[in-house]
Amino acid sequence: MIIQDAREGKISPVIRSVAASEGLEDLQILNEISQGRIIIPVNRNHGKIQPLGIGKGLRTKVNANIGTSRDCSNIDEELRKLDVSIKAGADTIMDLSTGGDIDGIRREILRRSTVPVGTVPIYQVAIEAARNKKTLVDMTAEEIFSVIEQQAEDGVDFITVHCGLTREAAGRIKKEGRLMDVVSRGGSFTIAWMIHNKKENPLYEHFERLLDIALSYDMTLSLGDGLRPGCIADATDRGQIQELITLGELAQEALSKGVQVMIEGPGHVPIDQIESNILIQKSLCHGAPFYVLVPLVTDSAPGYDHITSAIGGAIAAMHGADFLCYVTPSEHLRLPTVDDVREGVIASKIAAHAADIAKGIKGAMNRDITMAKCRKKLDWEGQIKASLDPERARSIRGSSTPSDKDVCTMCGEFCAIKVLNKEENWGF
Amino acid sequence: MIIQDAREGKISPVIRSVAASEGLEDLQILNEISQGRIIIPVNRNHGKIQPLGIGKGLRTKVNANIGTSRDCSNIDEELRKLDVSIKAGADTIMDLSTGGDIDGIRREILRRSTVPVGTVPIYQVAIEAARNKKTLVDMTAEEIFSVIEQQAEDGVDFITVHCGLTREAAGRIKKEGRLMDVVSRGGSFTIAWMIHNKKENPLYEHFERLLDIALSYDMTLSLGDGLRPGCIADATDRGQIQELITLGELAQEALSKGVQVMIEGPGHVPIDQIESNILIQKSLCHGAPFYVLVPLVTDSAPGYDHITSAIGGAIAAMHGADFLCYVTPSEHLRLPTVDDVREGVIASKIAAHAADIAKGIKGAMNRDITMAKCRKKLDWEGQIKASLDPERARSIRGSSTPSDKDVCTMCGEFCAIKVLNKEENWGF
Repeated sequence: MIIQDAREGKISPVIRSVAASEGLEDLQILNEISQGRIIIPVNRNHGKIQPLGIGKGLRTKVNANIGTSRDCSNIDEELRKLDVSIKAGADTIMDLSTGGDIDGIRREILRRSTVPVGTVPIYQVAIEAARNKKTLVDMTAEEIFSVIEQQAEDGVDFITVHCGLTREAAGRIKKEGRLMDVVSRGGSFTIAWMIHNKKENPLYEHFERLLDIALSYDMTLSLGDGLRPGCIADATDRGQIQELITLGELAQEALSKGVQVMIEGPGHVPIDQIESNILIQKSLCHGAPFYVLVPLVTDSAPGYDHITSAIGGAIAAMHGADFLCYVTPSEHLRLPTVDDVREGVIASKIAAHAADIAKGIKGAMNRDITMAKCRKKLDWEGQIKASLDPERARSIRGSSTPSDKDVCTMCGEFCAIKVLNKEENWGF
Repeated sequence: MIIQDAREGKISPVIRSVAASEGLEDLQILNEISQGRIIIPVNRNHGKIQPLGIGKGLRTKVNANIGTSRDCSNIDEELRKLDVSIKAGADTIMDLSTGGDIDGIRREILRRSTVPVGTVPIYQVAIEAARNKKTLVDMTAEEIFSVIEQQAEDGVDFITVHCGLTREAAGRIKKEGRLMDVVSRGGSFTIAWMIHNKKENPLYEHFERLLDIALSYDMTLSLGDGLRPGCIADATDRGQIQELITLGELAQEALSKGVQVMIEGPGHVPIDQIESNILIQKSLCHGAPFYVLVPLVTDSAPGYDHITSAIGGAIAAMHGADFLCYVTPSEHLRLPTVDDVREGVIASKIAAHAADIAKGIKGAMNRDITMAKCRKKLDWEGQIKASLDPERARSIRGSSTPSDKDVCTMCGEFCAIKVLNKEENWGF
């Protein structure tokens, strides 16, 4: 048990591994885990993955969402996305499958992944209800917990659960008025269920039952933000903050029981509101790791949402977000292709890395210093090796051959570096 | 004369046109122009372009650099880049040609462009010196002013001139120590010239002569930052700020003579230093428009520098930068292709738009509100039309056909919007 071990002062192999990979002291990791400010999402049934820390003082991590849909349910394609994500540097994978054999796909992804795997169990519950009964609102609380238990047993490392989406919070968005109401799938399922069954959200009402399951498997809870804003105009409204208050209370309860927990955050947020969103989460949730989904800074760029989210993700991480969910160029338009997944992971890695430089994460500058030195020496092979995506850098440079091998086709002999490398003594 | 007219209280057609396109009052534009906080770069010999305002309270503008190099000097290709840039939304074009018939290319671009055109005249001077004499350091001060005068007469709307790059400022970067010294081409030419000729920068020494030329054609000066940092480690150092101090003095002198002026800025800058860079420029240069080149927030992502610069550009513009120079995916690797140019312009437009929302520029939210309403109605044609790049959005959506036409292949029937649009009365 990760939190219990930490609280007993036991430097477990998992803590040692995370400390080594971050270049930090074992005791620092141990202390932050016991306070709930760092998590290491590893289900005890998913043992062979490399332990990964998320939270205070650590490198900003990146998640890639993969998984089938009704219209695209080819498992081989999703496994290719898994491989491509990990190769591009994704730190975790979420399987969000909603089409085909959902149990089979998840188990295959768990078997193959070398990084922690997350899911959103309510998807499976709702889809099975829609398939086997009349509609998704026919799902029962029992079914929700049964699917969660099954996924925990399969070895899922972290699950998104929209426990803070109460009738009270949902009511507030109606009262205030929103352009887009709810854009979270899990959020919409939960609200539709609460409307039809005239009951409170079972994941809120029976939160202790959820904690028991999580504790049995050392599974991490990612407390979802079902009311995250779906457009800039809806950002940081009363419904969103109401849900966050509840998530803070639930996180405290989870932590007191020894369950690792992180908090999910918005969403579509204008640049000037991102810092406040991070600060209020950190304050209301006592420093719990913040998983952002990931501030899209404009609604108007479908086809380029990997860029809108790289802007928001970098700013969020710079102000303290710990974990960025990638967004691909096909967000809002279609299920991503393998190429989209790759582009999405790289864009988020760029955002995470730029933020890590800005917040002084240990070792973050090393790569940039290497790159700068190689550029100054006109060492092209060194530049390519220091790149976040060496294959892409090599391919672009290779596509346009300069007549002088030591420069590139943009400046040629008029390369600023080359011009001044000839001048040893400036005399001023 | 734009400044003179403004100071005489004359609401010229140019001012009226800019005010109309920004949705602001004529008098506000007039007042900011006379104080030097807004510029309208239009050379009196380049009359048929649409007047464009850059500066305080206006929409953030985007420049696209095009132009030949020795290794790639196909003029048709550059004219295609011009067309593609303007179609993608570039507000200005800079012709940075360093290969082929430089006069011919510039004149063709000036003839064809519907937006203001800028150049860096020292490129032509240095290249002609390298072609006709032994090396670029053989260029003379006379030749520099003669090329500037020629380009002004051809109708160039704004020129980059590295007037603040003095022997004193350059000396400071050596004294402090930099990883990459100088990465500005114009900066490196100027320093090499000062070293070999043992003289002060002629554009600093004879700044009044430059002002006379600029005034004759109403040509705007873009005071270049020859010492901008070329890597994160070199950001915001003493040489950079020394040059900026001088640029502030020169801008004040230009303004007092009635010459429109903007200031160029860094460069490679970590996220946490961007806001300070903007504030110090605005302070030292008395609010002159700031043209950023454009904060790259990490050195390590060649192949994706349109993304690293979109992050930096959005943050810079949010804090007051007025004008973003685009960066393409091929920056640091090759002369950009037509496709690269397109990607670069769109990435910068996204950054500019996101910043305009954040700083409350009039009308900036309209597009996002339209998009949000179309998304809520599942109106796909409306969403495509509201997109920054409708063609790209249409093509991605069209590549993956959903079985239900009102959703997309990511969520299908489990679309959050669709699930909740069915629920009219929540009851809480």
